[in-house]
Amino acid sequence: MVTFAEVTVSQLLDALASPSPTPGGGTGAAIAGAMGTSLLIMVTGLAKSRHNTDDEKAALTSAREALAPLKSRLTELADADARSFDGVMAAFKLSKASDEEKAARTQAIQAALQGATTVPLDTLRTCAEALTHARAVAEHGNRPAASDAGVAIGLLAAAASGANANVQINLDGIKDESFKAATGTEAARLSAAAAAHAATAMQHISG
Amino acid sequence: MVTFAEVTVSQLLDALASPSPTPGGGTGAAIAGAMGTSLLIMVTGLAKSRHNTDDEKAALTSAREALAPLKSRLTELADADARSFDGVMAAFKLSKASDEEKAARTQAIQAALQGATTVPLDTLRTCAEALTHARAVAEHGNRPAASDAGVAIGLLAAAASGANANVQINLDGIKDESFKAATGTEAARLSAAAAAHAATAMQHISG
Repeated sequence: MVTFAEVTVSQLLDALASPSPTPGGGTGAAIAGAMGTSLLIMVTGLAKSRHNTDDEKAALTSAREALAPLKSRLTELADADARSFDGVMAAFKLSKASDEEKAARTQAIQAALQGATTVPLDTLRTCAEALTHARAVAEHGNRPAASDAGVAIGLLAAAASGANANVQINLDGIKDESFKAATGTEAARLSAAAAAHAATAMQHISG
Repeated sequence: MVTFAEVTVSQLLDALASPSPTPGGGTGAAIAGAMGTSLLIMVTGLAKSRHNTDDEKAALTSAREALAPLKSRLTELADADARSFDGVMAAFKLSKASDEEKAARTQAIQAALQGATTVPLDTLRTCAEALTHARAVAEHGNRPAASDAGVAIGLLAAAASGANANVQINLDGIKDESFKAATGTEAARLSAAAAAHAATAMQHISG
C-alpha cells in the first residue's frame, strides 16, 4: 500500500480535496503536525542558537532528539487515520439481513469507531508532546528563525485541535460509556496541555 | 526546477526539517493553507449537504468554484516563498569590497526583502480569502464532515497567522518607510479579517 509519505504533495492535496471519505481531517491534522514538528527540528539544527551558549545548544540538541521520532510517528498516524476510517465505512456496509448479522454489524461498527477515535487521540497526544519541546526551541533558537518557530507552533496547535475534533466526532457514535468517558477525559487533558504549551512557547518567541 | 507540489510528502518534511534556510515557515504556511483549502473543497463535493436543500447545494458549489484556484495559488506560493528567501540569501552574499558594491548590495538586499515580504503577504491574503468561504462550508456542509471543516478552518487560520509572522520578520529589515507602513497596514487588516472569518466559520460548524 502506498503511504501518504510516498505520494507527492500535489497528490496529497488532491486526495484531501476529493469527496471520498478518506483521507480527511484526521490525516490533514497528522501531516500538519508533522510539518510543525519538522520546522521545530529545523530550528534546532541551525548553526547558531539565540546567544550561542553551550547550555542553549544542549537544550536544542535534547529537543531535537525528542522531536525526531514524533515526526515519524505523525507521518504514520496520517495513514493510520485513513485506514481506521476506512474500517468504519467497511463496517457500515456489512449485511444486516438477519438479527445475527445486525448484531455482528453493530459490534463491528463499535470496534471500528473505537479505532477511529484512538488514532486521532494518538495524533493529539503526539502533537501535545511535540509542543512540550516548543518552548526550548522558541527560547533558544536563532532569532532570524523566530517566524519558523512561530509557524511550527501554530501548525502543531491547529493539528492538536483538529485531532481533538476528530476524536469528538467519532466518540459521539460510541456506546461503551466507560471507553467514552475515559477517552473524553484524556482528550480534554491533552487538548488543554497542547494549548498551554503552545501559548507558553509563543510567549518565548520574541523574548 | 522541481516544485514542492512534485516532491513527496516525506521529502517535503525532510526539507522543512533540514537546517538549510529554505524551505522554512513561509513554505510550511502556504502548504498548510493549501491543505485547509483542499479539505474545504472536499466538504463542498460531498453528495449530501446539511439539509439537502437546493439553496445549500448552490452555496456549496459557489464556494467550491471560488476555492479551487486558491488551492493552486497556495501551492505556487509555497515555491515562491522559498525562491524569494533564496533571493535574500543571495543578496547578502554579494561582494562589498568597494563603496559602489556596498551600495549595490544594500539595494539588492532591500529589493529581495521586499519580495520576501510580498510573497507571505500574498499567502496571508489567499488564506484570508479561502476563509471567507469557510462559513458557507461549515454551515451547509454535511454534519459527519464537521470535523473535516474544523480541521480546514484551523489549518487556514494557522497558515494565515504563520504567513503574517513571515511578513513581519522580513518587514523588520526594510528601510523604505512607505513600503513598510503600507505593507504593515495591509497585513494587519488581512490578519484581522482571517481571524474574524475563522471564528465565524467555527461557530457554524456545530450549529
